[in-house]
Amino acid sequence: MTVIQSLAPDLTSERVRQLFNPTSIVLVGATDKSSWSRAFYSNLVDSKFPGPVQLVNPRGGEVHGQKAYTSVGELPEPADLAIVMVPTGAVLGMMEEIADAGIRSAVILTSGFGEVGEEGAALEEQLRTIAREREITILGPNGNGFVNVAAGIMPYGLPLADEIPSGSIGIVLQSGALASSVLRQSLVRNAGLSVLVSMGNESMLSMTDVMEYLVEDDDTKVILLFIESVRNPAKFREVARRALQAGKPIVALKVGRSEGGAAVAKAHTGSLVGDDGVIDAVFRQTGVIRVDSLEDLMVTGELLSRTGPFRGRRFAFVTPSGGACEVIADRAEDEGIEIPAFSPETELRLREVLPDFANVHNPLDVTGYLLVDNRLLINALGAVEHDPEIDQIVVMTELPADNVNVDRSVHVERLTAQAEFFAGMSKPVIPLATAMIDVTEFGRGLMRDTGFPGAISGIHHGLTALGHAANWSEAYWEAQKPAEVDPADDAAPIELDVRPGEVFGERRSAALLAEHGIPVVPSADVSTADQAVEAAEAVGYPVVVKLGSDEIEHKSDIGGVKLGLKDADAVRAAFEAVVQAGRSAGAADVTALVQPMRPPGTELIVGLVRDPQWGLVLAVGLGGIWVEVLKDSTLHVLPVSRQQVKDGLLSLRAAKIFAGARGTERADLDAIADVVTRVAQLGVRLGDRLESLEINPLSVRGDQVEALDALITWV
Amino acid sequence: MTVIQSLAPDLTSERVRQLFNPTSIVLVGATDKSSWSRAFYSNLVDSKFPGPVQLVNPRGGEVHGQKAYTSVGELPEPADLAIVMVPTGAVLGMMEEIADAGIRSAVILTSGFGEVGEEGAALEEQLRTIAREREITILGPNGNGFVNVAAGIMPYGLPLADEIPSGSIGIVLQSGALASSVLRQSLVRNAGLSVLVSMGNESMLSMTDVMEYLVEDDDTKVILLFIESVRNPAKFREVARRALQAGKPIVALKVGRSEGGAAVAKAHTGSLVGDDGVIDAVFRQTGVIRVDSLEDLMVTGELLSRTGPFRGRRFAFVTPSGGACEVIADRAEDEGIEIPAFSPETELRLREVLPDFANVHNPLDVTGYLLVDNRLLINALGAVEHDPEIDQIVVMTELPADNVNVDRSVHVERLTAQAEFFAGMSKPVIPLATAMIDVTEFGRGLMRDTGFPGAISGIHHGLTALGHAANWSEAYWEAQKPAEVDPADDAAPIELDVRPGEVFGERRSAALLAEHGIPVVPSADVSTADQAVEAAEAVGYPVVVKLGSDEIEHKSDIGGVKLGLKDADAVRAAFEAVVQAGRSAGAADVTALVQPMRPPGTELIVGLVRDPQWGLVLAVGLGGIWVEVLKDSTLHVLPVSRQQVKDGLLSLRAAKIFAGARGTERADLDAIADVVTRVAQLGVRLGDRLESLEINPLSVRGDQVEALDALITWV
Repeated sequence: MTVIQSLAPDLTSERVRQLFNPTSIVLVGATDKSSWSRAFYSNLVDSKFPGPVQLVNPRGGEVHGQKAYTSVGELPEPADLAIVMVPTGAVLGMMEEIADAGIRSAVILTSGFGEVGEEGAALEEQLRTIAREREITILGPNGNGFVNVAAGIMPYGLPLADEIPSGSIGIVLQSGALASSVLRQSLVRNAGLSVLVSMGNESMLSMTDVMEYLVEDDDTKVILLFIESVRNPAKFREVARRALQAGKPIVALKVGRSEGGAAVAKAHTGSLVGDDGVIDAVFRQTGVIRVDSLEDLMVTGELLSRTGPFRGRRFAFVTPSGGACEVIADRAEDEGIEIPAFSPETELRLREVLPDFANVHNPLDVTGYLLVDNRLLINALGAVEHDPEIDQIVVMTELPADNVNVDRSVHVERLTAQAEFFAGMSKPVIPLATAMIDVTEFGRGLMRDTGFPGAISGIHHGLTALGHAANWSEAYWEAQKPAEVDPADDAAPIELDVRPGEVFGERRSAALLAEHGIPVVPSADVSTADQAVEAAEAVGYPVVVKLGSDEIEHKSDIGGVKLGLKDADAVRAAFEAVVQAGRSAGAADVTALVQPMRPPGTELIVGLVRDPQWGLVLAVGLGGIWVEVLKDSTLHVLPVSRQQVKDGLLSLRAAKIFAGARGTERADLDAIADVVTRVAQLGVRLGDRLESLEINPLSVRGDQVEALDALITWV
Repeated sequence: MTVIQSLAPDLTSERVRQLFNPTSIVLVGATDKSSWSRAFYSNLVDSKFPGPVQLVNPRGGEVHGQKAYTSVGELPEPADLAIVMVPTGAVLGMMEEIADAGIRSAVILTSGFGEVGEEGAALEEQLRTIAREREITILGPNGNGFVNVAAGIMPYGLPLADEIPSGSIGIVLQSGALASSVLRQSLVRNAGLSVLVSMGNESMLSMTDVMEYLVEDDDTKVILLFIESVRNPAKFREVARRALQAGKPIVALKVGRSEGGAAVAKAHTGSLVGDDGVIDAVFRQTGVIRVDSLEDLMVTGELLSRTGPFRGRRFAFVTPSGGACEVIADRAEDEGIEIPAFSPETELRLREVLPDFANVHNPLDVTGYLLVDNRLLINALGAVEHDPEIDQIVVMTELPADNVNVDRSVHVERLTAQAEFFAGMSKPVIPLATAMIDVTEFGRGLMRDTGFPGAISGIHHGLTALGHAANWSEAYWEAQKPAEVDPADDAAPIELDVRPGEVFGERRSAALLAEHGIPVVPSADVSTADQAVEAAEAVGYPVVVKLGSDEIEHKSDIGGVKLGLKDADAVRAAFEAVVQAGRSAGAADVTALVQPMRPPGTELIVGLVRDPQWGLVLAVGLGGIWVEVLKDSTLHVLPVSRQQVKDGLLSLRAAKIFAGARGTERADLDAIADVVTRVAQLGVRLGDRLESLEINPLSVRGDQVEALDALITWV
């Protein structure tokens, strides 16, 4: 029942493919005076774009040393793609000319649209309309174009270095200014690219459209994103899930994590920045890896572009340095990387190949004796390779930056031997450098000559990347299992006759919950004090008496809840008090609810709230200080599976409470997850009219889970 | 009363200075076959060491193309420093020869000592004895020597690159294998060095001795440490405090943060690894900056070597990229960096110099129009400079890695203009690069030619460094104030007649606390039920009755505490029960304590515990889940000031509770800090016999602070 939003519903993936793979290009508004024009032209020429590159300038003449035509209509040869650099006021007219000339794709560099305020936004809306009517696929405006490294097509408006490493990483940036830094990093981090796209204003083609293209693109194995805001959330989730199933990791640097950051992002893009906790939930649920630096973006991309999904998170580390082992051990704990002890057989094998004074523990220091015997690292790898407790092996070895007092042939010999050994290993082996230092031209030359695969950029960022890769791998394997049939997907929508803005108080909320299999504390609805006493005696003391009105949302605030009543007199008094409190608060409908008083247990708050971007969000936390002081809650965007709910509960800082810390009764996690999942499913079935649903508290004692109060509001 | 421990009490700073500044050097055990020997020799020759470099090899002949003498005694010229590379078994004898030849300092490269087990440790002890007796200053054994960049003296046993940048950063490493990576980083991070020392086994000269030397060394402004373990804690604290007062920041990467890391560090060094929380406390109290990566070590060092202490933590950021602004805003919040709004005057000035469509907010994006007008960045800096809310300005500008489609003169012009503008600014200005990318030879050439100071290595690590620098600056200014006279320093030691291992139960502990000004709940010590009732009636119900024995440490575990007693019968029953519980547990001395039952408030746990390395440590946390589930506590090594105690309380995650979250009464932080500081002062006065002192709970209601129970144990 997922509705795919799209900014351009008729934008087929074939049209997107055509945009990124033109066979002929025209620069419209080309001029020697513009650094952008010069960059586009020289990037195309330098990358040896095989098709024609034609130029248009209303004054004609010669531009960039080549004939310029005065209009698109005059071009002697066809063009697939137009690069539009004309002044803002001329863009709309130019789009008509382009369409008339049969050009189907355009990169619009020109700025002065949505990013400059209302007037610009109106102009951009007109641009979008023309593009739709004339069926032109637009990247931009206010973007720098793209670099299709795999195909050698570089229509890009900033100077490019001579060397952009070719590889399998596709990058989509919502900030054009960061692209130069990202490109330099791809070279010196040894992270080869398939495509880099600078999105600009996304008036038509959006980041999610490009993501979809990259998921389908055979040259791309890993997708990196710099995200300011997600413009079509439903499609984002759908494409992200498809990427996960296809085994293409998505790594995202999403800004606006902090309050200040969100404000800045909003100021710069003018677009909605959602609640960051919800973004985390969406990413977690769809297997998107979230990083918080450009360095982690590139290093995680670099790692994942080389490895398939990991079989597990148990690593052996083989290093030439005790100091490195210690840093690794600390970082591994930060990142959830397991470093199991070696098996006794592995230890024996290591003792055979290492000096007597070596410590044969994981992480392993083969000792400085490596300087004397340069086979030590390889021999240690061989000894560790077949340890059954190890999924992958990380080996600290790196490319020299330049030739320091050592003949190049020494490096060639060492790296060739390592490359050959790695290739023959039965388990994934990942070379890791000590710190983040550029791979230099000298190092790249050695890679070419030796087959050495390069090393991940340093312990710090490398272990972050390994942790991300291990988490992603788990999500990947999970996604390969036959889909758990989500009952909510099959269950029919529930149609309720509610008024806009209507509120269901405890009585009606509890009835709705109970009807759909969510355990609710038994409750008698009474109109007199005698009935209240009768109900209390039926259920047994102590009891709770509450105001039963649907008109009062927060009844405890007005004295409408009386707890721990131990006898008939107390119940009578409580009945009168809550009814009186209801009347004072202006309620017409003033009955009372009598319920058994539950012994103290663990109390949860379970809520469904509608996020303006992502729809219904499930929030679960422990009551009291946990939520109020520690903001300790777990979020899921609906729909959510029972397993995800359970994992979320375990991720709470308060999770130890479930196991019975503080002398409280153990809380059965499966029982809680069952009930919470049913609440989420009910939310999905209630559909778009539901604004919020809160159970507070959901009382848990062992496997007894019961809603003690609830409130539902409707849109 | 601080006792300075030293591994070599007679090691004067003059002797340490001599070790690092020799005018003549002899390589003992020099041979062409050893890569270490070749490295030492070529490093000395390549760095143009002005004094004689003589060689000793028992077989004589020619080594490294130079005459080798057969013994130290034969050397024709004097030598200040011996580099010892002879086999392990020959080291002790060689030390005697060296001493006989009048050589006063030695770097011992040879391994096979403490790091290989008991036998080696015994040998190292003999080495230390000879060195003391013969007054030779030893660096090592099992170390790679040092690099005195400032003086151009490089007795170092691994190949060095041609270029080690000269500067004001002194580095001390307890891991020799990491030195090569650190040296490469110093070059490409633009972090010039004064000295780098590879410590080895620290048999005589310890890391703290070298720290002391660097604090006194005029060439060194910042000290970087890679620490596996601190061998003489008291001296470390003393030297760290001196460095803070002198305005020389110490930045430390201390491994063993995690449980796994501590185990690995212990395995590799064989030395004690203290509780990591205590290390954090020591660092915080002495102004030592703790980092968790080699990258942050270098980048923080790089930043601090260029700036003096900051005046405050309010920064303006001037950038050419909206994307960068967003990343900066997120990272600033992580690191406690403030980015205040610009004043209206600043906004006006910015509107004058920036394009209309620019957003004149902090962090500032001057827009991509910078490509057209390259004065934009400088003009924006001028507009921001005099904003009264801004302490420092960070400007995103960086060195090009190489010449990309732009003539070098364009870079020279831009960087020269920036360098000149920065130099004339009235506030500190800090250039910042987008991401961590090496400064290349091309970039270094531009720095030489333009005076451009270089840029901090990327937003991610740069903002970590800025946050550290802001924190350190606060500690620095604090340290410049006249020292708060700590009453405990003046107060006389308290001599108590206690037996080894003696335990003070609640009665005696409470008496001792009360005697020294710590408020304790009133308590009547009673021997009969009648006395108990009398006491209860005197103090008023409800009351608490507790076992009064000094022999039972955990009286509540055996049923020795009865709370909330409301009448005489309950008190009688409680008296009999606790006395019986005491007798059953084998106590001979079984009276009872009667105390008023305090209404619920906030309950703290306050403890003094003796850390084997750092001495008495004060731990304060909130009781219940805070300590048990969340491990939320604050540590201080004694002595501690009232302000530090207060800051510690505010750093608790539970700090919101003090303000009255959850409906509890507000707790007066000053009143708590007063009492806790008095406890700490008592601890200092009780001295070395005190093993632990625990107040649990310390009850707080408003400004009423009272110990409800206490236990003291003695060494």
